[in-house]
Amino acid sequence: MIRPIIILVEPQLAENIGMVARAMANFGLSELRIVAPRDGWPRKGAHSAASGAVHVLEEARLYDTARDAIADLNFVFATTARERGQMKRVFGPGEAMSETHRRGAQGQRIGILFGRERTGLENDEVSLADAIITFPVDRQFSSLNLAQAVLLVSYEWYKLATGGALPFSGERLSPPAPREMVTSFFDYLEAELDAVNFYPEDKRPTMTRNMRDIFHRLEMTEQDVRTLRGAIRALAEGRRLRKP
Amino acid sequence: MIRPIIILVEPQLAENIGMVARAMANFGLSELRIVAPRDGWPRKGAHSAASGAVHVLEEARLYDTARDAIADLNFVFATTARERGQMKRVFGPGEAMSETHRRGAQGQRIGILFGRERTGLENDEVSLADAIITFPVDRQFSSLNLAQAVLLVSYEWYKLATGGALPFSGERLSPPAPREMVTSFFDYLEAELDAVNFYPEDKRPTMTRNMRDIFHRLEMTEQDVRTLRGAIRALAEGRRLRKP
Repeated sequence: MIRPIIILVEPQLAENIGMVARAMANFGLSELRIVAPRDGWPRKGAHSAASGAVHVLEEARLYDTARDAIADLNFVFATTARERGQMKRVFGPGEAMSETHRRGAQGQRIGILFGRERTGLENDEVSLADAIITFPVDRQFSSLNLAQAVLLVSYEWYKLATGGALPFSGERLSPPAPREMVTSFFDYLEAELDAVNFYPEDKRPTMTRNMRDIFHRLEMTEQDVRTLRGAIRALAEGRRLRKP
Repeated sequence: MIRPIIILVEPQLAENIGMVARAMANFGLSELRIVAPRDGWPRKGAHSAASGAVHVLEEARLYDTARDAIADLNFVFATTARERGQMKRVFGPGEAMSETHRRGAQGQRIGILFGRERTGLENDEVSLADAIITFPVDRQFSSLNLAQAVLLVSYEWYKLATGGALPFSGERLSPPAPREMVTSFFDYLEAELDAVNFYPEDKRPTMTRNMRDIFHRLEMTEQDVRTLRGAIRALAEGRRLRKP
């Protein structure tokens, strides 16, 4: 699978480059290109901020200009916060990564340009790109930092690449209880409640049905039924033992 | 619209609380609850990190325990990186925010618990929640910082709340060219190319059709046609002027 390439244009702070590397690694990306970093390269400040994603920094390629950095790519996105007067297609991160995924499957090499921390990309740099990515942020609080912008794009790509698979899924460890187990649980519960006159006579049909609905919504596993039966029995027998 | 409430349980660093406030504000959230912050509250370090999202900090409510912080809510998610042996439903951020949006529309108050920076939530705190949110991260580089976790959840919620609307859309400023304008553009271009014998006789039909396809893919606006016609004319007339 061809993964998108993250391209930082004149990043100012080494620490931000490190945090970008970390954000990429969180979501399975590793190919980083750096255009004319302000303080040169490599920089120790980047390594500590990368928190383990050092391989991304070590394999990062350096370029003098954005044009050089995208020369071998087939399709390039430019991330911008403001409309630039260029009639390009504008994508949110999710749709951009759908497009990236589709093109990657055809063997296309995709790059995503991120600009300087304070000033972003220059209009000429944006004009080198095929399309724009902008983030759906609140207009009153619209600025994302560099690593966060990379994080959101990388996250959207990884969701597509992995089909949204999660590290764990919380599947129940016991199978759903068979209907006979559930029905005899109802019988047991209702017998114990009858034994303490829980149901007013005229309301018994409605109340038993409502209570069965509660337990149906639980989608009880076999273990759930055993646990709940045991709790009901303990309550009932504890009561019976306490009777004078 | 009822927005989800972000709940930080025993956050350790004031700076992280500030960055959480900023991440929330980026994506239209403002209700923050803080449970027993390690260094007390308020803290100046939070304000500078909040970068303008100070209203979130000023309106933040303080609680002694996670249980207190969720008491008035109808549904609670707990964010965890590792499976906790509790048979809860597990959601990714996107699905969790779909659920949140659905419940919010019914008037339910939803909270999302985030744990301590290094150790996360305790199992008893997780057990207070209805369901778990976990992030689809690469297992080798799985740790997100607190503000990034809040950012991803807030981003997913905001996308749903706004229907994915972007700050700008790059619609073309000129309408699509009418077919007659396009067809006469083709006539003009082909006439100029014929004047310089561009087409080998046997290949002319195929080449003209292929070139028309290129321009069809452009989906030219009226302005595009005027621009390209002007460029072709300049090239052609420049040539005619240069003829000896």
